[in-house]
Amino acid sequence: MKLAVVLGYAGYGFSGSQFQPDKRTVEGEFIKAGISCGAWKDAKSASFRTAGRTDKGVSARRQIISVTPENPKKFIESINFHLPPDIWCVEYAEVNDDFYPRYAAGIRTYRYYFPCPMDIAAMQKAAEYFVGVHDFSGFSKMEKGRDPMRTVTKAAVFAGESGLPVFEVSAKSFLWNMVRGMAGILVAVGLGLTPPETVKEQLASHIWRVHPAPAAGLIFWDAEVPLSFSPMRQRTAVQRELAAKAKAARTDAAAAEALLGCGMDKFLRE
Amino acid sequence: MKLAVVLGYAGYGFSGSQFQPDKRTVEGEFIKAGISCGAWKDAKSASFRTAGRTDKGVSARRQIISVTPENPKKFIESINFHLPPDIWCVEYAEVNDDFYPRYAAGIRTYRYYFPCPMDIAAMQKAAEYFVGVHDFSGFSKMEKGRDPMRTVTKAAVFAGESGLPVFEVSAKSFLWNMVRGMAGILVAVGLGLTPPETVKEQLASHIWRVHPAPAAGLIFWDAEVPLSFSPMRQRTAVQRELAAKAKAARTDAAAAEALLGCGMDKFLRE
Repeated sequence: MKLAVVLGYAGYGFSGSQFQPDKRTVEGEFIKAGISCGAWKDAKSASFRTAGRTDKGVSARRQIISVTPENPKKFIESINFHLPPDIWCVEYAEVNDDFYPRYAAGIRTYRYYFPCPMDIAAMQKAAEYFVGVHDFSGFSKMEKGRDPMRTVTKAAVFAGESGLPVFEVSAKSFLWNMVRGMAGILVAVGLGLTPPETVKEQLASHIWRVHPAPAAGLIFWDAEVPLSFSPMRQRTAVQRELAAKAKAARTDAAAAEALLGCGMDKFLRE
Repeated sequence: MKLAVVLGYAGYGFSGSQFQPDKRTVEGEFIKAGISCGAWKDAKSASFRTAGRTDKGVSARRQIISVTPENPKKFIESINFHLPPDIWCVEYAEVNDDFYPRYAAGIRTYRYYFPCPMDIAAMQKAAEYFVGVHDFSGFSKMEKGRDPMRTVTKAAVFAGESGLPVFEVSAKSFLWNMVRGMAGILVAVGLGLTPPETVKEQLASHIWRVHPAPAAGLIFWDAEVPLSFSPMRQRTAVQRELAAKAKAARTDAAAAEALLGCGMDKFLRE
């Protein structure tokens, strides 16, 4: 039986979503967990597919995948208890064999979490230029012959819970590195290095490629799928691990910032 | 010639300050750097001493050390360019052979950086109970026969630059794990799990030992030394690395927090 699953994962421990031999990937860990809970015998029978490949370090809140467990009951009941705490299944739905997440998913939404306070109003003004149908070849490592036109339906910058800026962008599909490229130019705007209008100019130029923002800030936030999902049981270990990660990271940041003010700036040399 | 040096280091990459074979330590890296810049030939001739040993993960802003370079000029001019970017010398002073940082340093100050917003007023009230002469055996893994009395000259909790609470505590000397133990009880107070008066009661009980706060938040902040120090040239790489660490950590924290709100909390099970 084929199932669609809403999948979450924390990107920091993975070399991306797609299987690679000898690397820790979301697909690799997922297939292993399915074997260990008796949902399938091997990678081939699991038939793991995603709505969108994510790069090394990128997280997902509601990624859509499909799998074909030989034992769907066992899969639904126990997969979350065999997965490592940085991957979790949120919901599932039974689907027909012709369901492919990549084609079934409609509008995809990504969020980018920035690490510094910046000029949110200027970033929001810049983000508005992304909305609409544009040639985004200036924002992607383009494969030859690929259509560079994409339709961005939403692009907004707002203050997240921590007060730091968050970029949210929605489209039916994105080019490779496109969101990180957009986030990169928003950093330059947010720091006042370039005016918001730079986005408009660069969209028109098709050539210049911005320095993409680091992968860790990027989250596959959501994807529209015309399915009625049922919830799956969760492990508290997942939340504990995420909360511990957030706390440890905030301590690291505070300590590094405190050390920066140690007076060494007075006598700097390259 | 013996030199006193004001030393900074970022704790996250070290198994503590003191040399251990096969582990990355501040002392080990410092001696290696001195050999590579021609300041001394081996660990023995370097004669590395600190004002206070720091544990794995603990940072220092102004740790005091002494060394005896065979070639002081070379040491002063070039040690910072041979050290890895997570250790740096801030200042130096020529001292007599009978100078030992452990005995020469007066009041030591530590800071603890907390990772969560908490009730700073309650923490401050709790911290005030630490000031004065107390038996701190309830806050340390006590070695038998060691004097548990310590004189805390200052203890304050205030909002740091990020708005998160910072604990600053000064004393002539501390017991092992004492500051992390104090920080641990301040967490319980700051989260409202226990009233500020708990500190007073626990100081009186001498038995109960609080759960110490994690090492990463602790910084050896300063030590009074009756010396006139001269500045040493710095590498910009140190500041770049600290700034990059702070940024990456803030991104990790924001991403982990964003993923926590993915709706999985509705169906939790151990």
